[in-house]
Amino acid sequence: MSRRRALRLEDRIREVPDFPKKGILFRDITPLLMDGEAFGECVGRMAGLVRGKVDTVLSIESRGFIFGSALANRLGIGFIPIRKQGKLPHKTYRMEYELEYGTAAVEIHRDALKKGARVVIVDDVLATGGTMKAAVQLARKCGARVTSILFLIELAALGGRRKLRGYPVSTLITY
Amino acid sequence: MSRRRALRLEDRIREVPDFPKKGILFRDITPLLMDGEAFGECVGRMAGLVRGKVDTVLSIESRGFIFGSALANRLGIGFIPIRKQGKLPHKTYRMEYELEYGTAAVEIHRDALKKGARVVIVDDVLATGGTMKAAVQLARKCGARVTSILFLIELAALGGRRKLRGYPVSTLITY
Repeated sequence: MSRRRALRLEDRIREVPDFPKKGILFRDITPLLMDGEAFGECVGRMAGLVRGKVDTVLSIESRGFIFGSALANRLGIGFIPIRKQGKLPHKTYRMEYELEYGTAAVEIHRDALKKGARVVIVDDVLATGGTMKAAVQLARKCGARVTSILFLIELAALGGRRKLRGYPVSTLITY
Repeated sequence: MSRRRALRLEDRIREVPDFPKKGILFRDITPLLMDGEAFGECVGRMAGLVRGKVDTVLSIESRGFIFGSALANRLGIGFIPIRKQGKLPHKTYRMEYELEYGTAAVEIHRDALKKGARVVIVDDVLATGGTMKAAVQLARKCGARVTSILFLIELAALGGRRKLRGYPVSTLITY
């Protein structure tokens, strides 16, 4: 059997209607992750989208970790987790962002980044962009420069790119 | 500068007293992750501890994802997330486990594994072993064979290995 020449990542995304609630069409990435070739291809393409030299990969709990840690490892650089409130044990910066109802917050360790560090931030899905915007603000608060923002999937209708204007955003799959 | 010959991973683990509550000494892995060389070494050592041929890496939300996804990518095989209750969108198996007070549950997609698949399960810390035991049970419910269990850190005083008797457990750092 010859190796598939152009692996279509989209074919490995499963649509689940009405999750997490009625009327929402959820894009399930687990079939893609289960396929070692497709997952490896994702991480390789992400590595190719990183602009210039970067010092560190940041990613957002918890699905973001799946791509961010593999990417950091592939690039041979460090990985920094951005976590939900109350999970990181040391001194943190905290940033709130809006949800459909109410707010949530993410945190980063204050000593996670050196001033001037060049970072790439990775997450699985760009929806409204609220969480990623908070992540960018946390990186900047640490004195870092966000040189690339990567997503596996962009849900273009939700307009998340507008919140990230001025930053180089790349995505592998757009709906 | 010559490359450090024997990188001591222990030196990259930070002790945080009284987290998440008074009297607990928390082992913070973020300084290790931030160091690209140390993180890469971890994943490489984990790859060396995997016994025989494996088909898939399973890991447990959310810090387990950091090691599991990088390991799957390094081995060129698929990755399957075991998640907290209610997070996975498709049909799942669910397993409860005991916490200090009350119970929690983890889930796996029912179609995640082929019958007879050989799997390695990865997490960051072996404490009481309750979560990992639930993860093993989920893998077996899918018909898989758990051929290796890997942890970055083992807190030996908590006796988690006893819960995992009969399975090949390996850890990189023991306290």
